[in-house]
Amino acid sequence: MEGVDHLAHERKTAQFDVEAMKVVWAGSKHELDLSDRMARLVASDPVFRKDNRTMLDRKELFKNTLKKAAHAWKRMHELRLTEEEAGKMRFFIDEPAYVDLHWGMFVPAIKGQGTEEQQKKWLPLAYKMQIIGCYAQTELGHGSNVQGLETTATFDPNTDEFIIHSPTLTSSKWWPGGLGKVSTHAVVYARLITDGKDYGIHGFIVQLRSLDDHSPLPGITVGDIGDKFGSGAYNSMDNGVLRFDHVRIPRDQLLMRLSQVTREGKYVQSDVPRQLLYGTMVFVRQTIVADASRALSRASCIATRYSAVRRQFGAQDGGPETAVLDYKTQQNRLFPLIASAYAFRFVGEWLKSLYTDVTQRLQANDFSTLAEAHACTAGLKSLTTSVTADGIEECRKLCGGHGYLSSSGLPELFAVYIPACTYEGDNVVLLLQVARFLMKTVSQLTTGKKPVGTTAYMGNIEHLMQCRCAVKTADDWLNPCAIQEAFEARAVRMAVNCAQNVSKAPSQEEGFFSLSADLVEAAVAHCQLIVVTKFIEKVQRGNVGDGVKEQLQVLCNIYALNLLHKHLGDFLVTGTITPKQGALVSEQLRSLYSKLRPNAVALVDAFNYTDHYLGSVLGRYDGNVYPALYEQAWKDPLNESDVPDGYAEYLRPVLKQQVRLARL
Amino acid sequence: MEGVDHLAHERKTAQFDVEAMKVVWAGSKHELDLSDRMARLVASDPVFRKDNRTMLDRKELFKNTLKKAAHAWKRMHELRLTEEEAGKMRFFIDEPAYVDLHWGMFVPAIKGQGTEEQQKKWLPLAYKMQIIGCYAQTELGHGSNVQGLETTATFDPNTDEFIIHSPTLTSSKWWPGGLGKVSTHAVVYARLITDGKDYGIHGFIVQLRSLDDHSPLPGITVGDIGDKFGSGAYNSMDNGVLRFDHVRIPRDQLLMRLSQVTREGKYVQSDVPRQLLYGTMVFVRQTIVADASRALSRASCIATRYSAVRRQFGAQDGGPETAVLDYKTQQNRLFPLIASAYAFRFVGEWLKSLYTDVTQRLQANDFSTLAEAHACTAGLKSLTTSVTADGIEECRKLCGGHGYLSSSGLPELFAVYIPACTYEGDNVVLLLQVARFLMKTVSQLTTGKKPVGTTAYMGNIEHLMQCRCAVKTADDWLNPCAIQEAFEARAVRMAVNCAQNVSKAPSQEEGFFSLSADLVEAAVAHCQLIVVTKFIEKVQRGNVGDGVKEQLQVLCNIYALNLLHKHLGDFLVTGTITPKQGALVSEQLRSLYSKLRPNAVALVDAFNYTDHYLGSVLGRYDGNVYPALYEQAWKDPLNESDVPDGYAEYLRPVLKQQVRLARL
Repeated sequence: MEGVDHLAHERKTAQFDVEAMKVVWAGSKHELDLSDRMARLVASDPVFRKDNRTMLDRKELFKNTLKKAAHAWKRMHELRLTEEEAGKMRFFIDEPAYVDLHWGMFVPAIKGQGTEEQQKKWLPLAYKMQIIGCYAQTELGHGSNVQGLETTATFDPNTDEFIIHSPTLTSSKWWPGGLGKVSTHAVVYARLITDGKDYGIHGFIVQLRSLDDHSPLPGITVGDIGDKFGSGAYNSMDNGVLRFDHVRIPRDQLLMRLSQVTREGKYVQSDVPRQLLYGTMVFVRQTIVADASRALSRASCIATRYSAVRRQFGAQDGGPETAVLDYKTQQNRLFPLIASAYAFRFVGEWLKSLYTDVTQRLQANDFSTLAEAHACTAGLKSLTTSVTADGIEECRKLCGGHGYLSSSGLPELFAVYIPACTYEGDNVVLLLQVARFLMKTVSQLTTGKKPVGTTAYMGNIEHLMQCRCAVKTADDWLNPCAIQEAFEARAVRMAVNCAQNVSKAPSQEEGFFSLSADLVEAAVAHCQLIVVTKFIEKVQRGNVGDGVKEQLQVLCNIYALNLLHKHLGDFLVTGTITPKQGALVSEQLRSLYSKLRPNAVALVDAFNYTDHYLGSVLGRYDGNVYPALYEQAWKDPLNESDVPDGYAEYLRPVLKQQVRLARL
Repeated sequence: MEGVDHLAHERKTAQFDVEAMKVVWAGSKHELDLSDRMARLVASDPVFRKDNRTMLDRKELFKNTLKKAAHAWKRMHELRLTEEEAGKMRFFIDEPAYVDLHWGMFVPAIKGQGTEEQQKKWLPLAYKMQIIGCYAQTELGHGSNVQGLETTATFDPNTDEFIIHSPTLTSSKWWPGGLGKVSTHAVVYARLITDGKDYGIHGFIVQLRSLDDHSPLPGITVGDIGDKFGSGAYNSMDNGVLRFDHVRIPRDQLLMRLSQVTREGKYVQSDVPRQLLYGTMVFVRQTIVADASRALSRASCIATRYSAVRRQFGAQDGGPETAVLDYKTQQNRLFPLIASAYAFRFVGEWLKSLYTDVTQRLQANDFSTLAEAHACTAGLKSLTTSVTADGIEECRKLCGGHGYLSSSGLPELFAVYIPACTYEGDNVVLLLQVARFLMKTVSQLTTGKKPVGTTAYMGNIEHLMQCRCAVKTADDWLNPCAIQEAFEARAVRMAVNCAQNVSKAPSQEEGFFSLSADLVEAAVAHCQLIVVTKFIEKVQRGNVGDGVKEQLQVLCNIYALNLLHKHLGDFLVTGTITPKQGALVSEQLRSLYSKLRPNAVALVDAFNYTDHYLGSVLGRYDGNVYPALYEQAWKDPLNESDVPDGYAEYLRPVLKQQVRLARL
């Protein structure tokens, strides 16, 4: 079967230049080449194989991850990879590991919160991995609410040291990745106490393990927090637990860019603006949005290819059955997910430029867009990760029974992805932050303060509160202006509605508390508008290749109109559109799905994923699914023998009616 | 901490008699006592421990399952358990195992499709487990569409045998539970061919393994299909693959109740009505609905208790933080799931009576309600399993980060539950069957044929097409008649709408095909109406204990109004309610959540689940969560040593800058 392409007929029907779309997806020719090169490098190296991950027990899996990380480090040096290349290589290795936290949290924390002197001391060690670090913030009893952390760092002026201590069980550090078994150091967040006063949460560099033999230092209890969702998945990561019993560290291991403690124990704030910290948050959340588009595109690629291979029902005159991709119920669930993957890709790209903009402004002491940028990234993080988590599971269901096999790749993709809904801000908590910002924006509209950035549309409130949607035919819904206006009107009306209801409460806080479910819905409406807007802008920006723009147009319309259909209640209850116009949405969606159908496989090919990265028997590029499934099955440890372990003790006595006598 | 009840204050605020509610939930005092007894029996037996499941590798897990099954079989005999007791015991052992298929599919298939003679021969062997059987229907390339199966059973008149054969790779039997490693026999579905003619799919009893040494018989290739979603979960089951190479079986192993092949090879149909098979389907789906309520109640019990323990934000003046159960966003997601668990429990109870009714009618050759009962069970299977699968994952998210730990029990509950969305009819395929039935019912309304059972409301079409909802205040939504009418009007209008659109298509089949996404939505509306109706009936049926009826009333209203809010678009687009009335729904929901709040913990206590059955550190009855989480963590194999396996090979060289020299 070598060389067969079972999806060739699907690829022939594509109406656009797939290579050009690959560039659009990657962001640039440079990005595409880089990704392509690194993906192939990883795929061709047997140390990086993934197909046995779900069969390894915890210890084997973890050891294997250590091996991959060390091998990657070695290869990066041998090949003299640039920082950019090394990052991509880690990405395609596609396995949660301590290095993620070292490079993604420990190093940035020192860069962002350390003084120049501290950076000079610690960063070279970290860059060479002579020390390995993690980020120890959350505690057993404390997650989202950082201000509730209990760990203390009490300054002892006698010895010029901080005493790090875990006063309660619930103050045990809990969850930090890389902490359980690997990290030699951590940035630990603790309540800074000096001269009897609690100055709140600050970061400290604390050494955890001996650099000689890796054993935990005195006063430190550290371990892994145990098995997590799924097989494989995040179990390659040593999320850890950490307790301090009066551990002493030098005073200069407080990260001191924003505040210092003097030799005498005096707490001093520096004049560095604290807003700088928000810049980091914008950066991190931007990468999470980019990850969402990758995970969702991966899942929808698997589901699309397999749906083109798999046939069910509809055989006429003994001919082949119908490919499930031809069923409207399949298109109706799958195509909006492909469209969402593209939508998130483009909004992620835009967020990158937003981050650059924010950074430049911060350097110029311009904080005017910071709150808006912060709300925007919080909202988009929440929206894209929630949709992606649900979307991966939907893709699994779209693969029927076989999606439940680990070899489909989807169970592990789901299990490894879902923490994104919780880390870096619980998705609901984030939406409430967005809602708070929206309420503030609404309240300031009357004061003449102009809303900026993604809330600029609210400046048009008078029009949006009373405009009527002009759509008369299903084709009118192809007009981006009609879509844009409908999403803006819905968002502003829901926000204003909430603001009015909140204002009826005895106090704003009470109103906010009791109406939080409605506020979350208003925040979602606002975030969806952002994604729709950025997608429309992307489509309009230019002609990039044969038929590419037309495909993006179809995807953009599917993305927007599917949302409109799903949240029809919002649009109707706010009077944004009429029931008749709502029915026309469904009609137009049917037509859009038919337009997408011949391009479906090519659109997921444009993600340019190797079979190694996809890690799915069902998503194979060549569509040769069934022999691969069959082959994979025999590799299960249970198939090592025909007669299973335990037959003699636990099956034979049952079959031979001797169970009553057996010692079980 | 022994004996502490951290949730005592929550239990004190309950406004109803929990013991009385336990009886309501169980169905009767007898059921409650039975469940209670069996649950405790299992919980107190160390062989049945579950807390290490997710740490075992596949072979250990599977062997452990064999052990549990044998031990259970032994205990059932020692204690002389009745069939009812034994079934409950298996249920509380709570681990997918080959016995499920033996008792749940193999034995019933012989009972339902075998002649009296065949039953006499095979059932005693099966009852004593001298043979162990499974149900081999689905194939590698064929799932939902039974008519597409490829395995052949060709009659050879020379030897009076059938030749069972797998002509292609895709005809390999694939998925049957208990097949991979255990079953000695299977009911195999294959195309019956005699005298050169294909008579379609029939069931055959085929021996797979030697009763002497358990090795596969000649011509039979059999094994496990490999790792599945999650750790633990369904990996305790040996879902199998099976290929036949011209395997011969005696003619009398065709299950012959409905059709026979004579000695000469003539195919003969018996006069037993084929509709009898539908009775079995109604039975099986009824049990799936009951399972849905159990799984959802279990997940919501865990999430509710932990939400009462867990505190986040809102600390004032250094006091404790606010229990997350007090947050409206938490209530708004969790309380409808508690309500759904109750709703599914009651609709499942009603389905049991429907099954009895159908069976009695079938015995009297009355097939008048069969199609309706079939559609109804198909729809309820689809609705309840979909909501439950999503609901378990929602409960996991409601537990924050800790829900991602295996020790929370929720990952495994999700992984083990989700196949219910696919087996016994893919949920979307089932909804399309319901839709077909609805379209038929609508088309017959003009012919004067009266709709029966759960479609009876359609007889009231004239009123329902033009009635206006009378709700004027939020409290008017507490009126069950208003709710009932709104759900009926929405369902009938969506069905009629679809019927009209289908009729515009060139052919009915084309219309059905192109509008299938709309048809699915109409089917969902119909199924939700059934659940709402049965819940309302249950509430009205009687006063069963102090405050119990009031609580059921609140739950029923939450169930219905939350659906109304979620599907507001349906209600508005069909003109069933006005935007203003839609807004009143949200208002009433807020008030209902406040009413439920003080009873939340008691309402999940009423499920009467032991800590063993719940299998969750977060869901502990005593709420003593954090010490238990902490203790559980240290049991992970990674914590067997301070310095992890692999340190010398893969970490030390990195830290010591020797990676370039290391052999990795």
